[in-house]
Amino acid sequence: ARQDRLTKPRGSLGRLEDLAVALAGMRGEVPRSLPRRAVVVMAADHGVAAEGVSAYPASVTAQMVANFASGGAAINVLARVAGARLRVVDMGVGTGTANMRRAPALSREAAERALLRGAAVLDEEADAGLDLVATGEMGIANTTAASAIAAALTGMPVAEVVGRGSGIDGAGLARKVAVIEDALRLHRPGPGDPLGVLTAVGGLEIAGLAGLVLRAAGRRIPVVLDGFISGAAAAVADALAPACRPYLIAAHRSAEPGHQALLARLGLSPLLDLGLRLGEGSGAALGLPLVEAAARIHHEMATFGEAGVDEQS
Amino acid sequence: ARQDRLTKPRGSLGRLEDLAVALAGMRGEVPRSLPRRAVVVMAADHGVAAEGVSAYPASVTAQMVANFASGGAAINVLARVAGARLRVVDMGVGTGTANMRRAPALSREAAERALLRGAAVLDEEADAGLDLVATGEMGIANTTAASAIAAALTGMPVAEVVGRGSGIDGAGLARKVAVIEDALRLHRPGPGDPLGVLTAVGGLEIAGLAGLVLRAAGRRIPVVLDGFISGAAAAVADALAPACRPYLIAAHRSAEPGHQALLARLGLSPLLDLGLRLGEGSGAALGLPLVEAAARIHHEMATFGEAGVDEQS
Repeated sequence: ARQDRLTKPRGSLGRLEDLAVALAGMRGEVPRSLPRRAVVVMAADHGVAAEGVSAYPASVTAQMVANFASGGAAINVLARVAGARLRVVDMGVGTGTANMRRAPALSREAAERALLRGAAVLDEEADAGLDLVATGEMGIANTTAASAIAAALTGMPVAEVVGRGSGIDGAGLARKVAVIEDALRLHRPGPGDPLGVLTAVGGLEIAGLAGLVLRAAGRRIPVVLDGFISGAAAAVADALAPACRPYLIAAHRSAEPGHQALLARLGLSPLLDLGLRLGEGSGAALGLPLVEAAARIHHEMATFGEAGVDEQS
Repeated sequence: ARQDRLTKPRGSLGRLEDLAVALAGMRGEVPRSLPRRAVVVMAADHGVAAEGVSAYPASVTAQMVANFASGGAAINVLARVAGARLRVVDMGVGTGTANMRRAPALSREAAERALLRGAAVLDEEADAGLDLVATGEMGIANTTAASAIAAALTGMPVAEVVGRGSGIDGAGLARKVAVIEDALRLHRPGPGDPLGVLTAVGGLEIAGLAGLVLRAAGRRIPVVLDGFISGAAAAVADALAPACRPYLIAAHRSAEPGHQALLARLGLSPLLDLGLRLGEGSGAALGLPLVEAAARIHHEMATFGEAGVDEQS
C-alpha cells in the first residue's frame, strides 16, 4: 500500500518494489536499511575431481581459500564494494567428499554434521549482527555435485543440467555427464529424500550452505543467493523445509545451464544477468546494493501527499 | 591481458570484464576507482502534454523538481545509495517545447542553446571532479518525444516504439501513437539530420542530455545512461557525432518498447533488466556500483602468479 503512495507511477520501480514487499513479508516490516551484511563463503573439496571433471586441479580449492584470506579474490573485492564483511568457512578443504562415481559422496552423519555446521555459522553471524546474508562457495568440481543434485531433484536429463563450469573442454564436458550419470545410476537418490541426495552426490560446502539457508529463514534473515552451487544448496534446503523459500533472493542468473532448472524449481527470478560463472558469492555480492536500494526507497521516498505532487489524472 | 591473469577462470566475470575493458578504452587505463559520481537530472516541460498523452498532468514536472530539491524522489534515494551527488538542471520547466502536433517543438536556436547548456553542465561537473556521470530526466510527456525521436532516427513504425509511459490507458496509448504520427507527417524529420529531429519532436531536457553526452565523451568521461529518454538523447548525440558511442554504458533495459530499438541502434546491451520505467536516472544510479566493481576488480584482484594459484590444467 505504501509503495503505491510514493511519488512514482505505480509499479514503475519494477523488481525493487517486489523486493520491498518480499522484505516486508520476511521481516514483518521493510527494514529502513540493511547495513550489517555478510558474505559467507563455504569451501570444500570433492572426490569426484579425480574423474577429470574440472578445468582446474583440485589443489586450487585450498589455494583459493588462501587467496580469500589474503584479500586477492574477486569476492574480497566485491564484498568490499558492497560494504559486506566476508566470512570464509572451511567445510572440508583437503578432507572433502568421496568420489561419487565409486561411493556415496558423504555418510549420512557427515551430511547432517555439515548441515548443522552451516546453521551454526549463521547463528554466529546473526549473533554478531546480520541484516542480510549472501552465500558463496569454493570447491573444485563442485559444479559436478551441483549438476548431480539438480538432476536428482528435478528429474531432468543430466546433459541438460551440466555446463562447462570453470571452463572444461568438450571432451571434459562429455566425461562430466557420464560421471554424473554413473553416480546417479549407482546411488539412485530420489527427489523425495533430499538428505539422501546430499549424501549420494553432494558436497560439504553445499550441505553447509543448505544448513545456513535453513537457519537464516528460521531467524527471518533474508538470504541473497549466488549462482549455481548456492542454488543447489537452496534447492536442498527447500526440499527439506519449503518454509525457507520466502527468504530466498536470487541475485543473478549463472551461465551454468543447471542453474535455470533450479531457479524454476524454487520459483525464483534472478535480479542480475551479467554472464557470471565464477561463484565465490560474486553475483550475490553484486545483488546486495539492489536489496539496500529497495529498502531505502520504501522509507526515504516522499508520498504524493507529502510532496504535494498531483496523482494520475 | 590483465583480466586473463586474475585469479578466476577467463571470462567468468562476464559483463564486469567487458566493462573493465571498455573503461580502459575510454580512459587509456582502467581507473582504480570512480568515487566522484554525479547523477545529472535534466527537467523540462513538453507542449505535447496538451494532447493527453500522459497519465499525469503537466503540473507534475515542476512538482517533481521540487520533490528532487527536498530529497523525496526515487533518484534522491538511489543517488545516495550509489554514493553519487545529484544535480538537477531546469532546462525548461514551465517554458517547455511547443506542441509537436501543431508546430516544431523547438527552434533550431533553442535546440542548439539546449545542447550547449548540457555541455556546459558537464563542464561544470567535470571541473568540480567527475569520474562517472549518470543521466536522468523529468518531463511529463517526454516518452512521447522520445518515441518520436526513436521513430524518426530508426524509421520504425510509431506503434512499435510507443509504450504506456507513466501508465496511460489503452485509449491514451492510441492517442499517443496518432499524435506522433501526425507530428512526423507534419515535420518530416529525416534520420540524417539529428538536429532537425530534435527541433521537430525533441525536448529541452533531451537536447541538454545529448549535449552532456557529447561533452562527456569529449572529456573521456564514461556516461551511464538511464532508460528510454536518456537513450533518445544518446541516439541524437550519436547521430551528431558517432565518436561519442564508446563512452556510453547502458545501465538498464526500460519497460518502454522504444528503448530496445534505441539500444540496438547504439549497439548497447544494458547491464540491468529490473522492469523499471520511472526515469529520473533511477536505473543509471543502480548501475553505478557495477561500474565501480568492474574497475576495482581489475586492480584489486590478485593474479595467479601473485596468489600462487595453479592455472587451468
